[in-house]
Amino acid sequence: MFDTGPIFLIIGTLLATLGVAMMIPALVDLAAANDDWVVFAAASLVTTLVGLGLTQTGSGRPATLSSRQAVLMTVGAWTVLPAFAALPLLWSEAVGSYTDAFFEAMSGITTTGATVITGLDEMPPGILIWRSMLQWLGGLGVVVMAVSILPMLRVGGMQLFKTEAFDTPDKILPRATQISGSLIGVFSVFTFLCALAYAAAGMAFEDAVNHAMTTVATGGFSTRDNSIAAFDSGAVEMVAIVFMILGSLPFLLYVQALQGRPLSLVRDSQVHVFLILLALFSLVIAAVLDPLTAETGALADLRTATFNVVSVMTGTGYASADYGAWGPLAITVFLTLTLIGGCAGSTACGMKVFRVQVALKTVSQHVRRLAYPHGVFVMRYNGRAVEGSVVSAVMSFIFLYFVLIGLLAIALMAMNLDPLTAFSGAATAIANVGPGLGEVIGPKGNFSTLPDAAKWALSGAMLIGRLELFTVLVLILPRFWRS
Amino acid sequence: MFDTGPIFLIIGTLLATLGVAMMIPALVDLAAANDDWVVFAAASLVTTLVGLGLTQTGSGRPATLSSRQAVLMTVGAWTVLPAFAALPLLWSEAVGSYTDAFFEAMSGITTTGATVITGLDEMPPGILIWRSMLQWLGGLGVVVMAVSILPMLRVGGMQLFKTEAFDTPDKILPRATQISGSLIGVFSVFTFLCALAYAAAGMAFEDAVNHAMTTVATGGFSTRDNSIAAFDSGAVEMVAIVFMILGSLPFLLYVQALQGRPLSLVRDSQVHVFLILLALFSLVIAAVLDPLTAETGALADLRTATFNVVSVMTGTGYASADYGAWGPLAITVFLTLTLIGGCAGSTACGMKVFRVQVALKTVSQHVRRLAYPHGVFVMRYNGRAVEGSVVSAVMSFIFLYFVLIGLLAIALMAMNLDPLTAFSGAATAIANVGPGLGEVIGPKGNFSTLPDAAKWALSGAMLIGRLELFTVLVLILPRFWRS
Repeated sequence: MFDTGPIFLIIGTLLATLGVAMMIPALVDLAAANDDWVVFAAASLVTTLVGLGLTQTGSGRPATLSSRQAVLMTVGAWTVLPAFAALPLLWSEAVGSYTDAFFEAMSGITTTGATVITGLDEMPPGILIWRSMLQWLGGLGVVVMAVSILPMLRVGGMQLFKTEAFDTPDKILPRATQISGSLIGVFSVFTFLCALAYAAAGMAFEDAVNHAMTTVATGGFSTRDNSIAAFDSGAVEMVAIVFMILGSLPFLLYVQALQGRPLSLVRDSQVHVFLILLALFSLVIAAVLDPLTAETGALADLRTATFNVVSVMTGTGYASADYGAWGPLAITVFLTLTLIGGCAGSTACGMKVFRVQVALKTVSQHVRRLAYPHGVFVMRYNGRAVEGSVVSAVMSFIFLYFVLIGLLAIALMAMNLDPLTAFSGAATAIANVGPGLGEVIGPKGNFSTLPDAAKWALSGAMLIGRLELFTVLVLILPRFWRS
Repeated sequence: MFDTGPIFLIIGTLLATLGVAMMIPALVDLAAANDDWVVFAAASLVTTLVGLGLTQTGSGRPATLSSRQAVLMTVGAWTVLPAFAALPLLWSEAVGSYTDAFFEAMSGITTTGATVITGLDEMPPGILIWRSMLQWLGGLGVVVMAVSILPMLRVGGMQLFKTEAFDTPDKILPRATQISGSLIGVFSVFTFLCALAYAAAGMAFEDAVNHAMTTVATGGFSTRDNSIAAFDSGAVEMVAIVFMILGSLPFLLYVQALQGRPLSLVRDSQVHVFLILLALFSLVIAAVLDPLTAETGALADLRTATFNVVSVMTGTGYASADYGAWGPLAITVFLTLTLIGGCAGSTACGMKVFRVQVALKTVSQHVRRLAYPHGVFVMRYNGRAVEGSVVSAVMSFIFLYFVLIGLLAIALMAMNLDPLTAFSGAATAIANVGPGLGEVIGPKGNFSTLPDAAKWALSGAMLIGRLELFTVLVLILPRFWRS
């Protein structure tokens, strides 16, 4: 086998950090004179101690990390952290079982946003801020991972986004630490601005802070059962639209813009296609919506359409209306948006826009080869030639994505879920969006009534989706475990 | 532009042959003292004359054919032939409009088997034998095309099946003519044996001949509204199972077996996987079916399951029961079977088993690369190394296949079809299977009630699916038409 020292060291450090972070909801509850502060303090103690214990068993040289160590560290961290993050949810009795607590924590930390909790409006503030914090920390973790680890591992074509800084495995940790600083900065500034904007749009302080954290992380947890619809405010929806989009663009481009290259954001082809698709689908949905809502104007319909399209395509999952009732065309569009998702290198979810681009370029290249068998066609992405290994990695990802959704849907149907719930549930979990379609888990619904087995399966699917499928699947390879 | 001479010559020859073939139903109707013989004779005259006329405009050297000429010839033939094959259906008033006649002819010649005709049991024998002949001729055309033209065009990875005989475009026609002889031989012998077997199982002579032609061609047209269920015979179903499978194996392997290489059939990996999948899915469906049919035994359930699984996976589309009523798991399995289909190089339909194999190998290769970034992994198929261009062609095909089904389903929903009819109709047309799911177009239903626009869209989809997507799509490339 290989040296597990650095793996334990990193997971232990992350876990201890999570434990310390639990003191924030403890303090919030203490300030609100809510008894739950004891629960958070206890969970904080346990989590921090276990984390510190892990760092002690993990010696070794943390500056070097092989591919296999990086994989184990990533999957390990994204499994162990939600397992502990679930503790205060269980102990505070916000949920009824560890299954529910783990589901909620996994949904939070993967920025999925599916929830099993009802009665959010009456929840103590500690629980609410903890859910938001999970999404915020998870969002940050996703961005750091997408910039530093996934390109090095070449997961599903992510090597397209390899920067010079992460050329070799040896440099992962110091560079990741360095770039994390910039990313945390950008992420925090966006969150701060978003909270200010929400407050200006009329939200109460606590709601503004909570929603700012889950908006920028494109997570989708809300402080209300009715999600954003509870605020019934056009201004709030506009703020959400802007910051969900900002959270779905490649964060490295923000860092580059700050380093004096503002044009990289404007020139990026993934950003172009993402924004064009958002505009296009918003217009389609507005056109579908207009005849359905005779009392509202075209502009209000466009805002409702844009809000829901952005919410689903960025993988946030806020709901301002029950789009499941807008007819089969709308349902198909929302399912398509769920599957596509936002830009790679952001907090967004789904198969990512760049993979759709590469797939379409591959198809177009094949068509041209058919007409000109002797022609030479070089595929370019953002001006750079795309290697064949990237193409096969991207196409593998897309194929596996659909296969996994199909298999999970079959498993869910075997648990007696109806087909719409099973398929949309499988898609929304693997794509990390949040709400599914239909009565049960639709935008107006809730995952609490599903059987326990389905909750565990969906939790696993969120993990697999968030880690871009292959990072988890490689673990089932017997060869992986051989020295 | 390029020389259209050889194209007109070939299409003209095929059309004249089709015209002559129309004399068979004319003679059948004449023998049965049915007035429709006039209709067939008239259609035969028109078709033969137009065909001969085309051959006259088409001069040139037919022995050479460029890639682009081969594409135009293929798409042209598969469009012009059904357009004329529809004439007797319209003139005999078997259908009410040219839309219906074209749909039925396209469904026949692409071996899809979706029908708009009701009252088959009372149809005159000429119409019935004409529908069967369309599938038989179409099936033969598909096999010849899959062996000679598609590998040369490298459509969707079909270059994997390139034989030495078809290395260069120059040799296409003479070699195609030569190999067509062997293929026609094998195809005819199978049909003859199948008809004998059906007769032995108790079918009347006409039914045996008609069903033999549509079984070996994996077409699915029947002489009864209730399809194979009308015969209510286990023996008939067993015969159908055997010959549907024989029609779905690569025909070149039969030719090779006759040439003294019997092991090529046994050793072919596509054949292995196809048969394993058939067995596996039959067992799954039998398990689903067993508790639903308390009165029948496990063995009868297994036969019913196997018959329907084989019928759908081979793209035949005979129905012995309404599998739409067997619950969501069964529906998912049948949809999956529809999408996968049989072996390349046969009359079968769908995305083809070899593409699923290559896709899974690509995924597995990517997973191994993840664990061993510096490892060298060569993909093999049937013992030969697979080039990167094959992988990207196969993955392009699969991606486009799903995108086209999605787009067509959206178009059908815009025509007010319900989602299940729209999605299963799109899938069954592009996969050339036949029946869809649901009340309207399910195994017990019929395509006659669909709006005309939907019938044209589905006819186009059958053509696109039969010609492996890219052969048709390359025509929309402006560059294709440039000299």
